[in-house]
Amino acid sequence: MISEALILDGARVAADMKEKLGDKVSRLAEQGVIPCLATILVGGDPASATYVKMKGNACKRLGIQSIRIDLPEHTSTEELLAAIRELNLDPKVHGILLQHPVPHHINERAAFDAIAIEKDVDGVTTLGFARTAFGFADFPACTPAAIVAILDYYNIPIEGKHAVVIGRSPILGKPVSQMLLNRNATVTTCHSKTTNLADLVRLGDIVVAAVGKAKFVQADWIKPGAVVLDAGYNEGNVGDVDYEACLENVSAITPVPAGVGPVTIATLLKHTVEAAEKAVSV
Amino acid sequence: MISEALILDGARVAADMKEKLGDKVSRLAEQGVIPCLATILVGGDPASATYVKMKGNACKRLGIQSIRIDLPEHTSTEELLAAIRELNLDPKVHGILLQHPVPHHINERAAFDAIAIEKDVDGVTTLGFARTAFGFADFPACTPAAIVAILDYYNIPIEGKHAVVIGRSPILGKPVSQMLLNRNATVTTCHSKTTNLADLVRLGDIVVAAVGKAKFVQADWIKPGAVVLDAGYNEGNVGDVDYEACLENVSAITPVPAGVGPVTIATLLKHTVEAAEKAVSV
Repeated sequence: MISEALILDGARVAADMKEKLGDKVSRLAEQGVIPCLATILVGGDPASATYVKMKGNACKRLGIQSIRIDLPEHTSTEELLAAIRELNLDPKVHGILLQHPVPHHINERAAFDAIAIEKDVDGVTTLGFARTAFGFADFPACTPAAIVAILDYYNIPIEGKHAVVIGRSPILGKPVSQMLLNRNATVTTCHSKTTNLADLVRLGDIVVAAVGKAKFVQADWIKPGAVVLDAGYNEGNVGDVDYEACLENVSAITPVPAGVGPVTIATLLKHTVEAAEKAVSV
Repeated sequence: MISEALILDGARVAADMKEKLGDKVSRLAEQGVIPCLATILVGGDPASATYVKMKGNACKRLGIQSIRIDLPEHTSTEELLAAIRELNLDPKVHGILLQHPVPHHINERAAFDAIAIEKDVDGVTTLGFARTAFGFADFPACTPAAIVAILDYYNIPIEGKHAVVIGRSPILGKPVSQMLLNRNATVTTCHSKTTNLADLVRLGDIVVAAVGKAKFVQADWIKPGAVVLDAGYNEGNVGDVDYEACLENVSAITPVPAGVGPVTIATLLKHTVEAAEKAVSV
């Protein structure tokens, strides 16, 4: 029988990160610098609007300035690129976040890649991904970085473990696979075309769910004693993992909410503060 | 019992690629353009000198110009970067290949990344890797591209298969993992810190050996009927796979020599010609 599962408390990890950030923000203030995150929201998707608002509030509580740029649904790719370029040139702006997803008619990849690498605090650029994969990114994508931060906070070993990542998106599945690989995990990346998903997930010492489907990962897919990180956030405040059922099998698991989510936001704030520090030291 | 293994004939795949390239070179010649590959060799490593010579000869046979730049062992990173920048600016040069490895005192990553993306026909830049990972690279790294080309030439399905890649280098293990992932394989990337390597390799429908150790991959690691691609080339003309022993288990396998190697060179030529075509069309 497995002893009781450790609940990986993202709220606690995030609070710890923010406490350290508070000191940095104070030191920057002494130099007359206020870290500033610009968030761009295109269109009126209510979930996206909520996310942007949450990020803005999180900035405010920490003394980070946030600028919110709302663009109408019918914004063209060129117009969005122009807005991004303006923020790239603005010395008061240290970080730029383009809320994903943008309306379908926009070339999202082009928009992401228009963000200056030194302001890409959300880790969405093509170049930022490659630097993450090669292990020298300043700002890896926030959710992957949050997942690694949670493992580190709880001293859960990564090296030599088999990590199974379900999902291969450019801002989640792919970068988290690379980050775990760079931490010397053996990594299996699964996705919608994987034929024997349950069998493969069952091999994982560490399982990362990044699917975007509510309660997709089943308890009997989980090897007893595995560590499960749930990066999903679906309607009804549920993750990609059948949390209650998995509790019996896992040695540790992130809940939803209060798991990966708050650490992702704390990581965004951390990157923004670090971008401000770098801008000062230039 | 397994029927006789299919030997994946790299020489044949390469010959086929070069035949198609010949036509393209002729069409470029009609426009007064000769594709040109510049190869840079730093120091006197005999194996590297042989590779560079082979690549030069391969160019010559196809009517591609090759410029060879030999720099002394004591070349500094700055001097190497200057040489690369000069080639970036030279409109007659369509592709630049920096022979790996460079002497230890040089920052190889900086040197690779100094190559202009449109001339990165060897697929070694950080940005080139990311574009490969995101599926829109013009020139993925040549050996990974060769591996996929061999699978395609023999109509070996990739989608839904479990590919196990042994190795995680920036120009081989990592990009081939991403290319197979983008072709809808489920991909496990193994390396020196992988604890249960034999068990994991045994899961592979497709196994890519990119280790750099002679006869490292053993026959009893191979699932009966698997396809094995050997990207290794070690002293004594042997690959990373115990070829003779594996023949009994596999459904298909690349030999060494005349497996992945010639297709890698053909891919380099193909990228150089394509770079010339792009330069003309600008």
